[in-house]
Amino acid sequence: MRLSRFFLPLLKENPAEAQIVSHRLMLRTGMIRQQAAGIYAWLPLGLKVLRKVERIVEEEMARAGSIQLLMPTLQLADLWRESGRYEDYGQEMLRIKDRHDRDLLYGPTAEEAVTEVFRASVKSYKDLPLNLYQISWKFRDEQRPRFGVMRGREFLMKDAYSFDVDEASARKAYNRMFIAYLNTFSRMGLKAVPMRADTGPIGGDLSHEFIILADTGESAVFCHKDLVDMPAPGHDVDWNDLQGLVDQRTALYAATEEMHDEAAFGEVPEDKKLSARGIEVGHIFYFGEKYSKPMKATVNGPDGEVTVHMGSYGVGVSRLLGAIIEASHDEAGIIWPESVAPFDVAVINLRPGDEACDAACEKAYAALTAAGRDVLYNDTDERPGAKFASMDLIGIPWQLIIGPKGLAEGKVELKQRATGERQTALFDDVLNQLITGPKKIDA
Amino acid sequence: MRLSRFFLPLLKENPAEAQIVSHRLMLRTGMIRQQAAGIYAWLPLGLKVLRKVERIVEEEMARAGSIQLLMPTLQLADLWRESGRYEDYGQEMLRIKDRHDRDLLYGPTAEEAVTEVFRASVKSYKDLPLNLYQISWKFRDEQRPRFGVMRGREFLMKDAYSFDVDEASARKAYNRMFIAYLNTFSRMGLKAVPMRADTGPIGGDLSHEFIILADTGESAVFCHKDLVDMPAPGHDVDWNDLQGLVDQRTALYAATEEMHDEAAFGEVPEDKKLSARGIEVGHIFYFGEKYSKPMKATVNGPDGEVTVHMGSYGVGVSRLLGAIIEASHDEAGIIWPESVAPFDVAVINLRPGDEACDAACEKAYAALTAAGRDVLYNDTDERPGAKFASMDLIGIPWQLIIGPKGLAEGKVELKQRATGERQTALFDDVLNQLITGPKKIDA
Repeated sequence: MRLSRFFLPLLKENPAEAQIVSHRLMLRTGMIRQQAAGIYAWLPLGLKVLRKVERIVEEEMARAGSIQLLMPTLQLADLWRESGRYEDYGQEMLRIKDRHDRDLLYGPTAEEAVTEVFRASVKSYKDLPLNLYQISWKFRDEQRPRFGVMRGREFLMKDAYSFDVDEASARKAYNRMFIAYLNTFSRMGLKAVPMRADTGPIGGDLSHEFIILADTGESAVFCHKDLVDMPAPGHDVDWNDLQGLVDQRTALYAATEEMHDEAAFGEVPEDKKLSARGIEVGHIFYFGEKYSKPMKATVNGPDGEVTVHMGSYGVGVSRLLGAIIEASHDEAGIIWPESVAPFDVAVINLRPGDEACDAACEKAYAALTAAGRDVLYNDTDERPGAKFASMDLIGIPWQLIIGPKGLAEGKVELKQRATGERQTALFDDVLNQLITGPKKIDA
Repeated sequence: MRLSRFFLPLLKENPAEAQIVSHRLMLRTGMIRQQAAGIYAWLPLGLKVLRKVERIVEEEMARAGSIQLLMPTLQLADLWRESGRYEDYGQEMLRIKDRHDRDLLYGPTAEEAVTEVFRASVKSYKDLPLNLYQISWKFRDEQRPRFGVMRGREFLMKDAYSFDVDEASARKAYNRMFIAYLNTFSRMGLKAVPMRADTGPIGGDLSHEFIILADTGESAVFCHKDLVDMPAPGHDVDWNDLQGLVDQRTALYAATEEMHDEAAFGEVPEDKKLSARGIEVGHIFYFGEKYSKPMKATVNGPDGEVTVHMGSYGVGVSRLLGAIIEASHDEAGIIWPESVAPFDVAVINLRPGDEACDAACEKAYAALTAAGRDVLYNDTDERPGAKFASMDLIGIPWQLIIGPKGLAEGKVELKQRATGERQTALFDDVLNQLITGPKKIDA
């Protein structure tokens, strides 16, 4: 993408309404723009990151055997009356009447909707286990929306739902999501800690939140320090038996404020105790027959009709962008992990109009694009200092800086955003390095 | 994808509520399921096709220089009051009050929202021309939703918006969308005819609908026959001067019912007159200052402040699936064009459990997947006849049929869904043919 043809409305000033760094940086970099309280337009830069985060979530869900569908944003109130949640849900549910005076609502979650899809389609236990997920816009009418996408009203959520013939099988489904979540967040450069959590309006008796530690987190959390740096399990696992991997993590103390047990925490060795603040990026639930029973979601089992056991599994997709920025930024702006960066490489032309600079930049842009790199070619007339500042601000991992002085010796500069390290080398060598895969600069 | 692990709830019976073939087939193939009147869940098969249609739209929009963003589904009523459309829009607009009693609405289109983004961000004529688009869910509260996704209430639309410094430049933007649309629909196997159209609630004085001819179309259309088979312009065009290509198409008579001029149609040679029914899949508008003036979307021009000239450009993304099916089906089911098929190849195991069959199917599945083909491996216990019927029903373009008899001679069967042609050949040859790119069977 040529910057001159892109739409990147950067803000020069720090927006006054933004209290936390991710909100401030998302506004300043032109990733989002507020349209109403807690409702944002995703401008091109923000949308590009959102899509990359979605792709990672999709890949990890597929790996864990979940199948993607897409339910509508608006749901019938009658479905929620079947489960008994319509009256319970309170003011966070946006209730709507259509032209025929039918009660609709903007889905804050979709347990009822997916249970309806399930009961209409699945008749035999042989079709289980089944795990269905969607990535879709939800609405929760927060009393006081704040912190940008961290607590918005219209937000993008991945929600998966598992259907199993009995509790033992449902626990396996739960474990698959548990492990998939650790891998998902790890791929985004995040250290997510699974913590025992309250089940709230979803229900059930088993639940974990996945928490990113951050000073700006909304809730207090308590955990054993070893959990923070425990590596994600990765993909080389036995998806049919993950209990060991889950136990390894749940054996250590970790709980959100609502579930905190001061006595149990007291048993954690003093030097391993961590009380901190956290951002919830995922939440998984096992709730058995809570929805399947009132909504009559049953299958024919080998010994007669069985009510299915369900769980649900949420990832705050739009919120993740805020969490990633909270975890990865500096004074100059955002530092995107390569996996979710809006562009892989910025090509910075220090003197547009100079024949040699233009030719070298065009060559780099074409070669990197052909190699599958997502390139932002900064071809504008801004002065070099402004270009460096804006590319740092939006956090592109690699900056290829091309100017007339270096080119006279056949050289260009490569800067790594995360470390600030710069390297001057022959143009073709740098290009080759970026094409074969950006690696850490060898000093 | 292994069918045994996929979620493909086929209906055995024709659903009584479906009056047209696309609606019937989308329900029967488990692509969609109605959740409320005109509101559908997209089940995995439907979502896969929807995503492929989206990708084509995105690629063609990018080629025409449009930049993707994403505006929220819910909009502030106050924005629509600025343009004067809030009261005008009538009952098709779903009006909502939030917990603080603020007026929101579920966007049926987004001229106001994008104008707000524009005026907040763009200050100079040097940043023009600009074309921004989104693919997002819209809601129109149809009095009588019908025909499945063809006239739903919650639907997926691509809407683009152009901003230009004057009318001449805005006409160029209009032409770029005009040509991009022809290419877009052509890639989906559709023959779309651009027709002079009424501007309705969007406004302006220049507008074309892109119409697919189909007996089940909702509106009467009238055009010169030559337009129907005129090939799409393709990608090798001069995006800065498309007037000739547009003129070539607009010189011939083509109008929707609302714009029909019997006298002008009378001048079309008798043997070239076509009056038919059509499905609208795209609609483009040039409306100048209709929104930019009341909403004060201006830029600093070389000679002072200029109100921008705008156009908007819609594609009915979810509706396109219905249109494609209307245009491409037979008694046995859907015939997907390869560009939008949910899977490229179905591997049909005629005897699961047979060691040679299983091994050959696994080999084919792995090799085709590795080659980037989207494969549905029918590994279920159904009898062969049922497998053939269901793969025909869901319309996979290529069916690789592997059974014990053929395998004994090292042979498999390849069937092309569109033509019904079958070819028996050596396993490796067929595999190679599918890997190097499914081509028409040489008889």
